Amino acid sequence: MPDDHAARVAVLAQHPSTLKLVAIALDEDIGRGDVTSAAALPPGLRATATISTEEPCIVAGLFLARLAYQLVDPTLTVEVLLADGAMAGVETPAVKITGSAAAILAGERVVLNLLQHLSGVATLTRRFVDAVAGTGAAIVDTRKTTPGLRLLEKHAVRMGGGVNHRFGLDDGILIKNTHVALGGGTAVVVGRVRARAPASMKVQVECRSVSELEAALIAGADAVLLDNRSPKEAAALIRLVAGRVPVEISGGVTLANVAAYAATGADRISIGALTHSAPAVALHLSIEVQA
Amino acid sequence: MPDDHAARVAVLAQHPSTLKLVAIALDEDIGRGDVTSAAALPPGLRATATISTEEPCIVAGLFLARLAYQLVDPTLTVEVLLADGAMAGVETPAVKITGSAAAILAGERVVLNLLQHLSGVATLTRRFVDAVAGTGAAIVDTRKTTPGLRLLEKHAVRMGGGVNHRFGLDDGILIKNTHVALGGGTAVVVGRVRARAPASMKVQVECRSVSELEAALIAGADAVLLDNRSPKEAAALIRLVAGRVPVEISGGVTLANVAAYAATGADRISIGALTHSAPAVALHLSIEVQA
Amino acid sequence: MPDDHAARVAVLAQHPSTLKLVAIALDEDIGRGDVTSAAALPPGLRATATISTEEPCIVAGLFLARLAYQLVDPTLTVEVLLADGAMAGVETPAVKITGSAAAILAGERVVLNLLQHLSGVATLTRRFVDAVAGTGAAIVDTRKTTPGLRLLEKHAVRMGGGVNHRFGLDDGILIKNTHVALGGGTAVVVGRVRARAPASMKVQVECRSVSELEAALIAGADAVLLDNRSPKEAAALIRLVAGRVPVEISGGVTLANVAAYAATGADRISIGALTHSAPAVALHLSIEVQA
Amino acid sequence: MPDDHAARVAVLAQHPSTLKLVAIALDEDIGRGDVTSAAALPPGLRATATISTEEPCIVAGLFLARLAYQLVDPTLTVEVLLADGAMAGVETPAVKITGSAAAILAGERVVLNLLQHLSGVATLTRRFVDAVAGTGAAIVDTRKTTPGLRLLEKHAVRMGGGVNHRFGLDDGILIKNTHVALGGGTAVVVGRVRARAPASMKVQVECRSVSELEAALIAGADAVLLDNRSPKEAAALIRLVAGRVPVEISGGVTLANVAAYAATGADRISIGALTHSAPAVALHLSIEVQA
Amino acid sequence: MPDDHAARVAVLAQHPSTLKLVAIALDEDIGRGDVTSAAALPPGLRATATISTEEPCIVAGLFLARLAYQLVDPTLTVEVLLADGAMAGVETPAVKITGSAAAILAGERVVLNLLQHLSGVATLTRRFVDAVAGTGAAIVDTRKTTPGLRLLEKHAVRMGGGVNHRFGLDDGILIKNTHVALGGGTAVVVGRVRARAPASMKVQVECRSVSELEAALIAGADAVLLDNRSPKEAAALIRLVAGRVPVEISGGVTLANVAAYAATGADRISIGALTHSAPAVALHLSIEVQA
Amino acid sequence: MPDDHAARVAVLAQHPSTLKLVAIALDEDIGRGDVTSAAALPPGLRATATISTEEPCIVAGLFLARLAYQLVDPTLTVEVLLADGAMAGVETPAVKITGSAAAILAGERVVLNLLQHLSGVATLTRRFVDAVAGTGAAIVDTRKTTPGLRLLEKHAVRMGGGVNHRFGLDDGILIKNTHVALGGGTAVVVGRVRARAPASMKVQVECRSVSELEAALIAGADAVLLDNRSPKEAAALIRLVAGRVPVEISGGVTLANVAAYAATGADRISIGALTHSAPAVALHLSIEVQA
Repeated sequence: MPDDHAARVAVLAQHPSTLKLVAIALDEDIGRGDVTSAAALPPGLRATATISTEEPCIVAGLFLARLAYQLVDPTLTVEVLLADGAMAGVETPAVKITGSAAAILAGERVVLNLLQHLSGVATLTRRFVDAVAGTGAAIVDTRKTTPGLRLLEKHAVRMGGGVNHRFGLDDGILIKNTHVALGGGTAVVVGRVRARAPASMKVQVECRSVSELEAALIAGADAVLLDNRSPKEAAALIRLVAGRVPVEISGGVTLANVAAYAATGADRISIGALTHSAPAVALHLSIEVQA
Repeated sequence: MPDDHAARVAVLAQHPSTLKLVAIALDEDIGRGDVTSAAALPPGLRATATISTEEPCIVAGLFLARLAYQLVDPTLTVEVLLADGAMAGVETPAVKITGSAAAILAGERVVLNLLQHLSGVATLTRRFVDAVAGTGAAIVDTRKTTPGLRLLEKHAVRMGGGVNHRFGLDDGILIKNTHVALGGGTAVVVGRVRARAPASMKVQVECRSVSELEAALIAGADAVLLDNRSPKEAAALIRLVAGRVPVEISGGVTLANVAAYAATGADRISIGALTHSAPAVALHLSIEVQA
Repeated sequence: MPDDHAARVAVLAQHPSTLKLVAIALDEDIGRGDVTSAAALPPGLRATATISTEEPCIVAGLFLARLAYQLVDPTLTVEVLLADGAMAGVETPAVKITGSAAAILAGERVVLNLLQHLSGVATLTRRFVDAVAGTGAAIVDTRKTTPGLRLLEKHAVRMGGGVNHRFGLDDGILIKNTHVALGGGTAVVVGRVRARAPASMKVQVECRSVSELEAALIAGADAVLLDNRSPKEAAALIRLVAGRVPVEISGGVTLANVAAYAATGADRISIGALTHSAPAVALHLSIEVQA
Repeated sequence: MPDDHAARVAVLAQHPSTLKLVAIALDEDIGRGDVTSAAALPPGLRATATISTEEPCIVAGLFLARLAYQLVDPTLTVEVLLADGAMAGVETPAVKITGSAAAILAGERVVLNLLQHLSGVATLTRRFVDAVAGTGAAIVDTRKTTPGLRLLEKHAVRMGGGVNHRFGLDDGILIKNTHVALGGGTAVVVGRVRARAPASMKVQVECRSVSELEAALIAGADAVLLDNRSPKEAAALIRLVAGRVPVEISGGVTLANVAAYAATGADRISIGALTHSAPAVALHLSIEVQA
Repeated sequence: MPDDHAARVAVLAQHPSTLKLVAIALDEDIGRGDVTSAAALPPGLRATATISTEEPCIVAGLFLARLAYQLVDPTLTVEVLLADGAMAGVETPAVKITGSAAAILAGERVVLNLLQHLSGVATLTRRFVDAVAGTGAAIVDTRKTTPGLRLLEKHAVRMGGGVNHRFGLDDGILIKNTHVALGGGTAVVVGRVRARAPASMKVQVECRSVSELEAALIAGADAVLLDNRSPKEAAALIRLVAGRVPVEISGGVTLANVAAYAATGADRISIGALTHSAPAVALHLSIEVQA
Repeated sequence: MPDDHAARVAVLAQHPSTLKLVAIALDEDIGRGDVTSAAALPPGLRATATISTEEPCIVAGLFLARLAYQLVDPTLTVEVLLADGAMAGVETPAVKITGSAAAILAGERVVLNLLQHLSGVATLTRRFVDAVAGTGAAIVDTRKTTPGLRLLEKHAVRMGGGVNHRFGLDDGILIKNTHVALGGGTAVVVGRVRARAPASMKVQVECRSVSELEAALIAGADAVLLDNRSPKEAAALIRLVAGRVPVEISGGVTLANVAAYAATGADRISIGALTHSAPAVALHLSIEVQA
């Protein structure tokens, strides 16, 4: 059962971090004004423009076109033609903008930069999701996001069919091997965390061996992370867990091996590349003088 | 002769947009605090950590480690071990941090996210630069940058041996085919721009045909852009220019074909993928209790 | 086992929300400058001042004195004499400031306003904690905090021996009766949430009857909230839970009845008044010309 | 004759400090989004909600409900049902909100926190004002306000029938005993201030004895403050002033003794507790699916 | 052929720096509220006001009246009666405002301060432009602008018929004598800059002697600046340039001597006084109760 | 007896509005970086620079050189050689800067723009002060300041020997003829203001006739403003006041007639031109390679 996408997109479009990022991006690109358009275009020219896809993809972040263009020139009309998460083909129109030609061109690059990146994240996520279809494994993102774009990238992951891991260090507990090493071993650290941690959060523990896994489960871990294991090693550890808690796999997962990891019986497979290495999807804006 | 890298890095590290981005990234990740470390670590634990590369790459943005960690905890000691632009191998130490273990872990993800991305941009740029070595062509970036990271990504391009195109719509003139189409043809538009444009800027014109090229040169273009031409088409047009103005090529350039484009005699080859599709370089932070 | 107070205070003192609040408070009070001191004091006068308690209390937020005075005049010397959470008596010195008399007086009111309020929260929390001593019940705060001061007030609650509930709507799940009513009943809503909610979070459910309680537990609630029940009603419901999940009580809890609520066997008792109705603790600043 | 309340409220609702505080409060509470409502509610659910009082009180700050809900979701309809300063009973409806159920719940806590606190300030003020009814004494606030909320709390004091003292250190002169002690005695300090102070401001002087009072009046004080005097001491000093300048009383004033202080003939009685120790008024939001 | 004034003004009115400056100016003047109007005016009074010129001038910045009054009170109606750049006489109505009298007076001073200054800049520019009419010389501004007002002042210069020089250190190259002296002489420095500078920018070089001029031209300067030369010296150097590159004159230019400088054949004459020493134009706001 | 200049300058240098203005000014001028110096200077070049006056003046705002250069490059050494308010001659050194040549040049224009303007205000003020020397009249500023620079310009006025009028609409009461006209006549309006206005503020009233003057005094005005009167008219009205309250003159005051106005016996003469039309003082920065 899907959650309330429309409401979430509305919240995201209003979120202070979204507004701040779009404003920064426009300021960064437009600066003191578009000198080319100011000089090149006939005064008062009005135009109609369409943003279309150049390749098959999952679109994401289209609402940012409206947001950005409202900041550039509130008299522009912006019509979003596709729902976030929709699959688009070659030359599918996604956004239509009408109004001052100079304003449309002033915002073009920022809008395309945002949409190309977020659609890239959604599209790559979808490829991973498709690759594990039929298994019980969810494709999950990480905190390896582009600085300033975390909420938007996590949205794009959802649009691609992925599931969000924690959004920051403050809304979920994940005891990694560094905590274990610094804190005195799995049993000690998991025990300490169970005693001190916020009551609202589950305790997930990275385990690198059978003994760590057993210590974690005995100490009361609510979930387990297996990092940088081969599919075979992971499968063995998952058999040991035997369904007592959910198991997440991470590290070294690619489109080539994700199916093998999904076949281990893992509940979740988390992949940093979804957000840090997704190639941009090709989009372009075509514009013509308003009839 | 290289420009003054040290001074530029100093300026960049002080730049309001850099400080704002790093603060946003930390706020986004740390939020109300790192609940795991607060619960997992023994009180007052001090540690030493090293950020190292996991694969050969050109490092970029290392100064951001110092910046970010100063915001997290000003009592940390941060030592940057490599110069931006240096080539690193597998397991090359790049940054060393000493102080509160909790603070080191709190900033880890943001610092790695920044360094992995910028080093990715620098490394991809270097691969293009190497591919055209020996020709006269410069590898040039575009405005297709990640929102909020333009100055940093343009720095990373320089660190990879690339050259920066304009930084925004306000510091350079580039008459694209959209301007030509909306404005009444090459001759009219170039003429209008020469009359109106800031005296300090050169006029670069995108040309899609022999007739546009001739019109642009007659109208006084200072430079020419050939977009989405095959190497063969580009070479023919460049012969026509015959060195009168610099020629830039863009569109569809890949590592596979960049050498062919460079062989056309183009002065500059601009590539959006340098910034919008560079895969992250793998880095990791190892940490141990301070002896 | 206490968590790492020193590290948490350090984080809090660096937190963007703390810095912003202190800056707002100073701007609000000092405005364009202290006209009285500028006119009344001899030029260049240096002084020593002490902030002391006027009544027994738990002090909290003392580090804000250093923060605020650094913004007023970085040449002031500020010495914090007590640890946050310490019990103070009548006329216990808490902070000592040395430097420009005008600067000390300019920051006085803001510093006292912050310390009086936060110490008030800590002191009231301690009275509740003392009232339930010997039972297993923890005293817990709520989201009923003063706008802009949530992190600081939650810190003060900890300093008084209390435990923090979730910090916002994004780091914990609490299904209230409104969600149950709007969403189609306890079983439906708890089921929906378990399917959709972030994997890192537990699901707490408010239950107003035996049937709701049973539905919640069957649907997989991780914790239960009993709101606005009498101690007797609460005790009956808690017997029904029989230790399967932790139980929290809220609503109508006062110093007079908190012990009765604790005697029900509840694990946690949450009290909005800790933060929204704590009377300020009386503090004062005494100042004299520097010898 | 009352001043222009409607205009003042309009100004306050537009004031940068109000907008900033509401934005901070929402960010603090909603963070990255309301995970419970996102998971618990059926997609697209619309509802109607009413904020009502639970106890007799003076309401204040109701306009903030509109402001906050506009930031949460501009498509919500917010109807304010009572004027600020109105007296409400038990279960008096004060604000009605219609629209997305998720949005209404997302803003609920922030709106209630603001209204409960400000109505608490107004209600406590009114109790003091009622206690001195029939005397000539005005009930006056202080700078002992909650950091970040000064303008709003001073508004609430007015709504309760109180009068505002200066808003900051920059819009009024009050020579306290610290200034007298540091500056060389009453006569010297008052003389110095009269010579240097802004021409637009009156000079108020704290006096602790007959001799200080006489020195202040001789030196040209425009008003006098008696701090921490018993009603009897204050009455004696006020007889000495004999109406030459207005007299303000402060320090140790409670609901139990305020009438005695008013009977001294004082013109103004200032009370820090109005803003730093007013208990929150109980309000609640009830919500149901839109018919 | 004039550029697109309407579009540029629209961009300027939306520019972050404009919005920020207007907000700062209002905050600076209105602070916590207009105490005089709050006390002096009958509640709810509505009025009509007109801003008119008191002396012949070129008006500039009129759109700021709309912007500022929207921030003060969005229910005000603001009608701008003249186009920026229009010539006004004595008592020419420029802006009409209708609505709350208190709001009109609250914004009056900020609006007048902005319009008086910018119209002053436009008017002074026009006097210089008129003084060189019939020569080929353009009147050009500098970076000697009022901090925070650069974009607005550069707009006012255009409205007066002037031409903008670079907007900052980042959008144009100007090698001054300091660069020459620090960098090793004209030939060396111009050569170094041509090799390193952004490809989109021309290279302008300050020359103080025949030899510097010749070195600059040989090294490839795109334009030349003659600073602090007498008209006679300038004319001689311009003859030497013989139209190879555009020549700009600066330093010591006044209304008395600008025609002599224009007669030298210079292409551009840049004048810091346009922005740093333009006297304010007298404007006033008249207001009456709405009929 | 002068007030505490050193303390006031320290406060001003720390004031949020000062920090914000300097940051805006630097951002406005430096933007993405100084392309000329980056290309023209040898890498790592260090230099020594001196800011000196080119004409006799009163210097003001010198502390801003330190502030601005710290933001540009915290490793620069900045030595302020004169006290604000000092009289300087031709070629008097005022500030010395040592460090990176590129950093010194990057901040040069912003620092000079600030110092030239503020010294211009101080110098013009001093000329008015000198012109009324020996009379009892003080030279007073107005709210006709440059947007964003009010605190700094008011400081410059003090440095020139002037006296500050109110800083905004919130820290002083001035009933102008608009208030009188809108509010129902002098007697009504002054009475209303006395009843409603903040107790800490005096009531100043603009009077345009004998009858208004008498009405104002009867209604309890604390001070009087005569606007746009000739010296003769003003003298007659001042005789009527006969010392009962201070009298301020404004409107049409120039260096040519200020002595005549001072001879009327007025206590204060306020002059908008001090801040809105002061010509910049000529300063320059000379720089040489560090020995």
